[in-house]
Amino acid sequence: MKLFSLYKGVYRLGIVTALAAFLVVGCQSADKGAKRNEEPMKRKEYAIAIHGGAGVISKDIDEKTKQEYLDALDEALSIGENELKNGGKALDAVEKVINYLENNPHFNAGKGAVYTATGEHELDAAIMDGHTMEAGAITGVRTVKNPISLARLVMKNSRHILFSVDGAEAFADKMGVERVKNSYFDTEHRYKQWKAAQKESGHRIKVQPGSHDPDMWDANKYGTVGCVALDKEGHLAAGTSTGGLTNKEYGRVGDVPIIGDGTYANSRVAVSATGIGEEIMRYNAGFRVAAYMRYKNASLEEATSHVINDVLKPGDAGIITVDQYGNISTPFNTLGMFRGKADSDGLHEVKIWE
Amino acid sequence: MKLFSLYKGVYRLGIVTALAAFLVVGCQSADKGAKRNEEPMKRKEYAIAIHGGAGVISKDIDEKTKQEYLDALDEALSIGENELKNGGKALDAVEKVINYLENNPHFNAGKGAVYTATGEHELDAAIMDGHTMEAGAITGVRTVKNPISLARLVMKNSRHILFSVDGAEAFADKMGVERVKNSYFDTEHRYKQWKAAQKESGHRIKVQPGSHDPDMWDANKYGTVGCVALDKEGHLAAGTSTGGLTNKEYGRVGDVPIIGDGTYANSRVAVSATGIGEEIMRYNAGFRVAAYMRYKNASLEEATSHVINDVLKPGDAGIITVDQYGNISTPFNTLGMFRGKADSDGLHEVKIWE
Repeated sequence: MKLFSLYKGVYRLGIVTALAAFLVVGCQSADKGAKRNEEPMKRKEYAIAIHGGAGVISKDIDEKTKQEYLDALDEALSIGENELKNGGKALDAVEKVINYLENNPHFNAGKGAVYTATGEHELDAAIMDGHTMEAGAITGVRTVKNPISLARLVMKNSRHILFSVDGAEAFADKMGVERVKNSYFDTEHRYKQWKAAQKESGHRIKVQPGSHDPDMWDANKYGTVGCVALDKEGHLAAGTSTGGLTNKEYGRVGDVPIIGDGTYANSRVAVSATGIGEEIMRYNAGFRVAAYMRYKNASLEEATSHVINDVLKPGDAGIITVDQYGNISTPFNTLGMFRGKADSDGLHEVKIWE
Repeated sequence: MKLFSLYKGVYRLGIVTALAAFLVVGCQSADKGAKRNEEPMKRKEYAIAIHGGAGVISKDIDEKTKQEYLDALDEALSIGENELKNGGKALDAVEKVINYLENNPHFNAGKGAVYTATGEHELDAAIMDGHTMEAGAITGVRTVKNPISLARLVMKNSRHILFSVDGAEAFADKMGVERVKNSYFDTEHRYKQWKAAQKESGHRIKVQPGSHDPDMWDANKYGTVGCVALDKEGHLAAGTSTGGLTNKEYGRVGDVPIIGDGTYANSRVAVSATGIGEEIMRYNAGFRVAAYMRYKNASLEEATSHVINDVLKPGDAGIITVDQYGNISTPFNTLGMFRGKADSDGLHEVKIWE
């Protein structure tokens, strides 16, 4: 009897335990996010990601052109990597990488910027320091050789965040940055793109999700360049620079110079986006990554997947992101994205397609 | 024995049940937000909130001036209320209310806008349709009598969201909206404010949290006007219009025309903010309300309290918000905010201080 009773007791205890375990597991599972960060994650010394635009990038481009892009991305990535390896600031890495990409005619930023509807170039850029939450941005500049550097000066020397057009030029006058004629930004391939865009509709050619026209090489109609970095001090920064949309209407402001849209950084994540600016703006893609991480206690991967797959539509955009631990996530829902990533664990790669 | 065994069985069952209940309650409590919306909330037929700027508003203002502001707010609120009561769209209510406030010289939007550092007026506005997620905005216009109406035309007739300065003026040319000379926006009291601001520092006078200088009547140095509305169809809309910051530098773009900062709407909430634009921009105040609601499954009240009390600093801003059920929340951390709210349950009030 005693033995039987003990048996029953153990049996019941088993049920209690199983039930409790089931409920605890269920409860923890519902609260998965909240528990995650209690286990400290190992932080990489530094990490960096770059992009040079996302969109329809035909796989039929000739080998030489493809190699030029990959080489340029590799060079840009190495500039940022060296800066961080040598203890440089995330902000400096971001600015130097973007300066290189602005000066390289392959990308739609600085030299090589697309043409507006009036046949000129209007440049936008933004930079944000995730450590201080300071930010600077400019839109519609026409004579500033390196827009990202002017954005950084806005951040450093102005009580404001964003200056437009003539106000931005006036600020550039005060700061004494390098100036060029608008024609400095001209390139033959952008001129052809512009003429083709004018011919087709006089308007933006909407990227059709899944379309794959070998004649279409229009990644940079939507392209920008961007960089996100984590430095040895654990500080994050993000920057983006662009010539905007081919054949864009005069005065159109896209997502790039908007803090929280094309460019965002805080103490936990840095984001730079590229794609159809209006969609990135409508859904606040940059800050949305940070908000999802903070308010859902989600990982970087979960947050970027949410924004690219659940919120934005196929064909809209790509984002490059790095978090405070040096994790990198660079998803896109376009057919391709010029990109690269590197970290202190020896990662170093550049890619165009999946 | 049998009885005793039954007793023990019941006793043990009691423990099991209590333990299970404890765990289930604990689990539900951790998951409180997620459960909330399973109980359907009764929706009001319509709801509306308006603001006319937040900042240091001295309680020593003379009775006549105070009454003029309250009367103007009451009139604006009634315009929106009638529109919604008669089955009008949230978007129409927002535009009509803001048109009234733009035309009223008491507020820093349209007629009565503050002076820039160069002694002119540059106006910004944005509008967003929470039902379609479409948005339109303009920054730096100088000849458009009602900037909010131009913003709505950008939303309706352009593939872009935001136009700046001359690009916005060119768009206004195409749309044929009512134009005025820049001097139309002049008012004596703004001129005096500007001259005082120039004298003091040539720069923005930072609002000191808690300061209460009876001579200081500077709510509208930071002021804007805004409106959020829920219509009978259950659609939300938000709009904001401003003359910006007294003595602001040429070309400065503030929070108002930025979707997700000063102006935001989706299917669950509409937000219009007023205050120190750069802080609203840095923390993406408008979209942050929506993100907190969505990703934390929080109530409107919890979300607005988070933004105003946890994220922004005292003295920074006020926000007006309405959710899909017609709940209204209008918190501010400044000394005052010109505001009003009304709904289909008979609420109708205008206020300046707490």
